[in-house]
Amino acid sequence: MIVHKDTYLVVIGGAEDKKMDKVILKKLVELSNKKDPRFVLITTATQQPEEAGEQYKKVFKSLGIETTIVLNIENRDDANDDEINGQMLKGDCIFFTGGDQLRISSILGGTKIHENLHKAVDLGKVIAGTSAGASMMSEIMVVEGVDKEAPSRCTIKMAPGMGLIEGVIIDQHFNQRGRIGRLLSAIAQNPHSLGIGIDENTAIILDNKGEFQVAGSGVVTVIDGRSITFTNTCEQYPNEPLAITEVKLHVLPSGYGYSLAKKYPIIKTEFCNNKKKNEKAAQ
Amino acid sequence: MIVHKDTYLVVIGGAEDKKMDKVILKKLVELSNKKDPRFVLITTATQQPEEAGEQYKKVFKSLGIETTIVLNIENRDDANDDEINGQMLKGDCIFFTGGDQLRISSILGGTKIHENLHKAVDLGKVIAGTSAGASMMSEIMVVEGVDKEAPSRCTIKMAPGMGLIEGVIIDQHFNQRGRIGRLLSAIAQNPHSLGIGIDENTAIILDNKGEFQVAGSGVVTVIDGRSITFTNTCEQYPNEPLAITEVKLHVLPSGYGYSLAKKYPIIKTEFCNNKKKNEKAAQ
Repeated sequence: MIVHKDTYLVVIGGAEDKKMDKVILKKLVELSNKKDPRFVLITTATQQPEEAGEQYKKVFKSLGIETTIVLNIENRDDANDDEINGQMLKGDCIFFTGGDQLRISSILGGTKIHENLHKAVDLGKVIAGTSAGASMMSEIMVVEGVDKEAPSRCTIKMAPGMGLIEGVIIDQHFNQRGRIGRLLSAIAQNPHSLGIGIDENTAIILDNKGEFQVAGSGVVTVIDGRSITFTNTCEQYPNEPLAITEVKLHVLPSGYGYSLAKKYPIIKTEFCNNKKKNEKAAQ
Repeated sequence: MIVHKDTYLVVIGGAEDKKMDKVILKKLVELSNKKDPRFVLITTATQQPEEAGEQYKKVFKSLGIETTIVLNIENRDDANDDEINGQMLKGDCIFFTGGDQLRISSILGGTKIHENLHKAVDLGKVIAGTSAGASMMSEIMVVEGVDKEAPSRCTIKMAPGMGLIEGVIIDQHFNQRGRIGRLLSAIAQNPHSLGIGIDENTAIILDNKGEFQVAGSGVVTVIDGRSITFTNTCEQYPNEPLAITEVKLHVLPSGYGYSLAKKYPIIKTEFCNNKKKNEKAAQ
């Protein structure tokens, strides 16, 4: 849970625009809310850390960021190194690139970097991640799953993420890779978790009220499984397709949002002047 | 609406198995429920009618069907031809191949074949269609739409179908082509219609009680928009992504079903001995 009023978690569904209007990356600069904010880029997820480092340095520079420190933490020793940890904590915005979310969790999980990442949340920093860097934000992350398939138990594998956001399972490249099936599978296994499917060039920005707002060109699909009346997930053979009834879905484009704390969608203010109406509808 | 107790509409999401266990095509033979049933194949949707004709003739023969009449109705004159209409009505099972659903509606719509197709429903026949032949079954069909995209108004075009099933919009190749976005767009425009997304090698079998059962290897996704509390569909610019809140979703594999008449999912009897429990939950 975010307590500090200046902390924002920015969770990006991958392929954020780096050439045109850069809406999402601009938001990071804006949220850092400081003269000359310092950016830290963590390239652990990717196996091309140098290319990724150069690319983001250039983009951030084009947005006025003078200092981007690239930390390519490739092993658990580095992740426990005091100097590297100190450098991370100097960042006003800490950004995780894409790649493989299992690299992030297996290299950083349970190290000082992991601990300091939680500390960074309490210190009022902006923590952002794209693609694999998005998935790792939640307590449970989808690490493998067949795209464009009917939901079935064997199509997904999950693993513990870095736990910055509680009670959610995040999936990325959502509509672009046809991932509704795999996220539904994940939610059916424990409908207590909320599924958040984030499109490419789209992000959620989570604040200390437990509310997120959507930014970017796609949509965020929220899957609320609390209303599920039936699922065969515990009875079926792993290869058979899942049955799920009465799942609730919200589709939220830029400017719309969702309260993770209270579990209701927030309508863009242009269309609805207060949240009360909607809050009521969600009850 | 189906009145005759022997009538079944079999709506297939495309790419039904024609080589292995042929579960769905076998169902057609079984449902025809007659010694030596006569099959009629209508190839209007495809621009390779001869290949399609040969292929299905062979498959049906392998399932014991001695007579498959191929009707390649390529223009409206043929669609109004009495002899061709007579031949169609002699079929115990009338099967529409895949291709382009606009070919079916533009060539057959408002002709005698269209009229006789409705008559066939009243005569206790089995009417089946795959892919384009599935989409055309509903009153409104999706004719164009970008796959694997966030829902947005301009991503879909709809047109009137052949109207054999009322109050639904059917989409096919559903999970395989990542079509949840386009079906959500369609439903947001009028939440009165129920969205039915059918996977490849998967079918719904609709009977005269207004209930369908799922067959095949994938799932059927039912989108019930009646619960939608908000959508920006009438306010947004056509290119912008849609907002939709509180959509209800059901995912139904083989053996499960749905009552179109009463709008609730039907759980496979192995898992639940009566429908009442579920009926209650849907209220």
